[in-house]
Amino acid sequence: MKLEKLVGDRFRERPSDCVVDSHAFMVRGGYLKYVANGIFSSYLPLRRVTRKIEQILREEMDAIDGQEVQFPVVMPAALWQESGRYESIGKELARFSDRNGSPLVLGMTHEEAAVQLVREYGQSYLKYPFMIYQIQTKFRDEARPRAGLIRVREFTMKDAYSFHTSQEDLQAYYEKCHKAYERIYERVGLPQVLSVASDSGMMGGSVSHEFMLLTSVGEDSIAVCEACGYRANMEAAECVFTKPRKGDEKALTLVETPDVHTIEELCAFLGIAWEDSCKAVVYQRNADDSYVVLFLRGDLDVNETKLTNYLGCEIHPAVITEDSGLNAGYIGPVNLKGDCTVLYDRSLEGRGNLACGANRNGYHYTGLDMERDIKDARYHDFAKIQEGGICPCCKRAAIKVFRGIEVGNIFQLGTKYTKSMNMTYVDEKGESHYPVMGCYGIGVGRLAAAVCEASHDEYGPIWPLSIAPWQVHLCAVRPDNEEVKACADKLYEELERRGVEVIYDDRRVSAGVMFADADLLGVPVRLIVSPRNLKKNAVEMVTRDKSYSAEIPVETAADETEKLLRSLAQG
Amino acid sequence: MKLEKLVGDRFRERPSDCVVDSHAFMVRGGYLKYVANGIFSSYLPLRRVTRKIEQILREEMDAIDGQEVQFPVVMPAALWQESGRYESIGKELARFSDRNGSPLVLGMTHEEAAVQLVREYGQSYLKYPFMIYQIQTKFRDEARPRAGLIRVREFTMKDAYSFHTSQEDLQAYYEKCHKAYERIYERVGLPQVLSVASDSGMMGGSVSHEFMLLTSVGEDSIAVCEACGYRANMEAAECVFTKPRKGDEKALTLVETPDVHTIEELCAFLGIAWEDSCKAVVYQRNADDSYVVLFLRGDLDVNETKLTNYLGCEIHPAVITEDSGLNAGYIGPVNLKGDCTVLYDRSLEGRGNLACGANRNGYHYTGLDMERDIKDARYHDFAKIQEGGICPCCKRAAIKVFRGIEVGNIFQLGTKYTKSMNMTYVDEKGESHYPVMGCYGIGVGRLAAAVCEASHDEYGPIWPLSIAPWQVHLCAVRPDNEEVKACADKLYEELERRGVEVIYDDRRVSAGVMFADADLLGVPVRLIVSPRNLKKNAVEMVTRDKSYSAEIPVETAADETEKLLRSLAQG
Repeated sequence: MKLEKLVGDRFRERPSDCVVDSHAFMVRGGYLKYVANGIFSSYLPLRRVTRKIEQILREEMDAIDGQEVQFPVVMPAALWQESGRYESIGKELARFSDRNGSPLVLGMTHEEAAVQLVREYGQSYLKYPFMIYQIQTKFRDEARPRAGLIRVREFTMKDAYSFHTSQEDLQAYYEKCHKAYERIYERVGLPQVLSVASDSGMMGGSVSHEFMLLTSVGEDSIAVCEACGYRANMEAAECVFTKPRKGDEKALTLVETPDVHTIEELCAFLGIAWEDSCKAVVYQRNADDSYVVLFLRGDLDVNETKLTNYLGCEIHPAVITEDSGLNAGYIGPVNLKGDCTVLYDRSLEGRGNLACGANRNGYHYTGLDMERDIKDARYHDFAKIQEGGICPCCKRAAIKVFRGIEVGNIFQLGTKYTKSMNMTYVDEKGESHYPVMGCYGIGVGRLAAAVCEASHDEYGPIWPLSIAPWQVHLCAVRPDNEEVKACADKLYEELERRGVEVIYDDRRVSAGVMFADADLLGVPVRLIVSPRNLKKNAVEMVTRDKSYSAEIPVETAADETEKLLRSLAQG
Repeated sequence: MKLEKLVGDRFRERPSDCVVDSHAFMVRGGYLKYVANGIFSSYLPLRRVTRKIEQILREEMDAIDGQEVQFPVVMPAALWQESGRYESIGKELARFSDRNGSPLVLGMTHEEAAVQLVREYGQSYLKYPFMIYQIQTKFRDEARPRAGLIRVREFTMKDAYSFHTSQEDLQAYYEKCHKAYERIYERVGLPQVLSVASDSGMMGGSVSHEFMLLTSVGEDSIAVCEACGYRANMEAAECVFTKPRKGDEKALTLVETPDVHTIEELCAFLGIAWEDSCKAVVYQRNADDSYVVLFLRGDLDVNETKLTNYLGCEIHPAVITEDSGLNAGYIGPVNLKGDCTVLYDRSLEGRGNLACGANRNGYHYTGLDMERDIKDARYHDFAKIQEGGICPCCKRAAIKVFRGIEVGNIFQLGTKYTKSMNMTYVDEKGESHYPVMGCYGIGVGRLAAAVCEASHDEYGPIWPLSIAPWQVHLCAVRPDNEEVKACADKLYEELERRGVEVIYDDRRVSAGVMFADADLLGVPVRLIVSPRNLKKNAVEMVTRDKSYSAEIPVETAADETEKLLRSLAQG
């Protein structure tokens, strides 16, 4: 099509509200338009990118025997009450009522709908395994949408659900799907995506993986072991600690510590390392504001996901009131008063000679020995893994932390949904069981944005051929020159005739404007017809990534273009 | 793929809640599953049908220079407040609030979103005309969902919006789109679809057309003139009447009519024809319950759409209270008391010798002469056109009334949305104007259901090749016979290799079960490999509509199948 007719504006200035490049380029290039917080409309160039991604997703899901279905966006609350998620999920789930007052929800994920669709079908073991998937709009009322298409409230997602009669069969299919995901990232131009162990969160189930594109603008943190290759989302990465050295035990001693409120201040005051302190972090349960006091080594941070999973409920940082019985700034494990749940992180296990709060304003203890002074403590994993931390797999202190964008996830759900929604099948012996499920998601818009993050220069996106909005960007520089116009028109027709996707710019604008627009559209192959080139009877052919440039004869321009496209398609 | 693996159940019994054939077949054939009132999930066979329809829609929209975009399903209420529809649309518009209390709506149509997307782009006349479209999920909280996919609450729709600098340009594009719609119906196998003039309803604008499939199960009524070809939705069809004969005027006479309450009873009591009576029909405005009394000829019905459009507000049938001043059952135009709006239908204009209520319990008048007795009456068109009525176009009494399913609509919206949402462009003289808009919709699921209504036999749908879930249904009858299995397997592989879409049934079930399932899936070409056929070294090839049947040699079965598919594709 002609660029002149392309709906949407392109411009040079980076909008001030764009914190990531993909967002800035998509706004500047006429790909999307803000409608509301985390809600966008797409113009044609983005729609062409997302349609190509959708087709790749479809092909790869079909290749692992997936069957495309469609679930509704709007679902009755009753369906989510069956699984228990109507109550357990917070404000992310949009709830409303229809004209008759019946409660409805907007689908943010479709496990319930999937079980509802196949509950009757899957009554015999002979029907298993099977996988159904859809590519459909979802709405999740995120608290903090950000970064353009990276974190939105409304999005298109490919979500797949597999059903099995055994954990082994799920496991085998899960690995098949993992491979399909690798092919998907490869095909859309992101072969560098890594899978990492992740937390299953509200989805339930045990084993799960996220697929991560490592990039400094990512909102997730990933722990990677440089020694053994272990990879996990920070939310899921287990913290392990070396056995503390013993000996040189000191007595528990009360120390006056005026104006010392934080663990940093305490360590500075006492002249000790942070790791020789025991820090208290206080939360409240969302449901009843009851207190949870967590003790951990002073140099560590709390992994709230682990804490939430352990407690089985939502929490928030505490507001410590006078009548709580807690002395804010001086909370310690010895003689702790107040009505609260007390938890101990694994980092404290077996540790001695620690400084900690004395539960009395203006005082701390030194010489705390966990075994001796807190006899009944039970230790769990609540800390965030750190750069330089110990790998839970190979036990070497080789953990590195990277930022990443999550571009897909897969979950082994087990029987969470089939059990709660009472889906059963009868086996060969006539016995009834709950099928085990897996689910597999990829957000289409976020994947497009991730490709753009991974593949751009300062002027715009460099789309891989497989998902580029067009294959060829044809520029007629100086179209007022009759020869230029005739040559470009002819080439345009010839390429279209051959089925090549061409965006044709024959506007009477400067070459600078033309190339800036072409950079923003990021089409892999650019053909330039200009008076200068025509003098040499040539058309200039360059790739968007500037890795290839050639002057090709006018007569064979279409052939040469097709040849280049073929070679790009083969990678 | 193998039928054995197809998720979804097929069965023989017609579900009792299915009032139309398409709904029954789609439930019986494993096409869809009920989720909530007017909300369904689709299984693979339906998804394959709708995807093919979507692709046809896309191609035809692209062919008239449409640009595919995507609007959000969830929109801020503010957008609908700009156009005024947040207030003017009733409960069909689903409204809810996000986690921050901001009001949102679910898109039931996207005029507002379309204007929002192009408001900045379309600031110069040089950008016009242009058309944008999407294929996206919509939600309309219908009061009475019915008939499976014919009237639902959640649906996928192709909606297109065009923008122009003049009414003439809109008119020209509107006709182009009308032709594109004809091609679409032709391509999906519904060449018999008719366009009819329609009421623009809540969309605003003046000229609009609906595309109707005439069928007795349709929920719309269409007036067709058998003489001149005039066609209109009943809601929009103008009523015209012949000039009444004059002479033989009788005096207005009070008649005691004990126990006569309805116009039927009155005419029977007086021994006169219904058309010699003047009937009162009473409504109340939804907003304030104020009364509206409409008088029309006794044999006619009220067209509430015309009445609503005239009043500019929503109404409902009246509950006549004692203190209203109205004598229910005896309301007439002479000496009518009570605080109400009084309207007169065109059918009464110039009429004499009518019977009517006397506004007094137990009494009616005879001899009512409209000109003489109701001097200040103004007449408007409020009646429903009737079978045998006069064509507003050729004035012959040749109107026939048909039932139909609306499978598309197109509207000339004018400046309703651009004006209310303040979208302007500057013309060549530097003057500012509001662009004129057109909009063009087709519901994907309803179109699939309409094809099924138009094309089925008692055993199931007969899908046209263009939108059939598969092209070929291969049956291996008695697959326990090694020869049958080997031949069918080979044919399956060969056809798949050639890119033919095959559903392959090699289950160990009876031929009866196999063919019943094949009938429900409605695939156009059926190939039957059986011991009996193989004895003749033949494969049986039959079309689903039974118009063609042949025994083809095993060796050339794939070739012959492709040949038949090609001939079916050409119609």
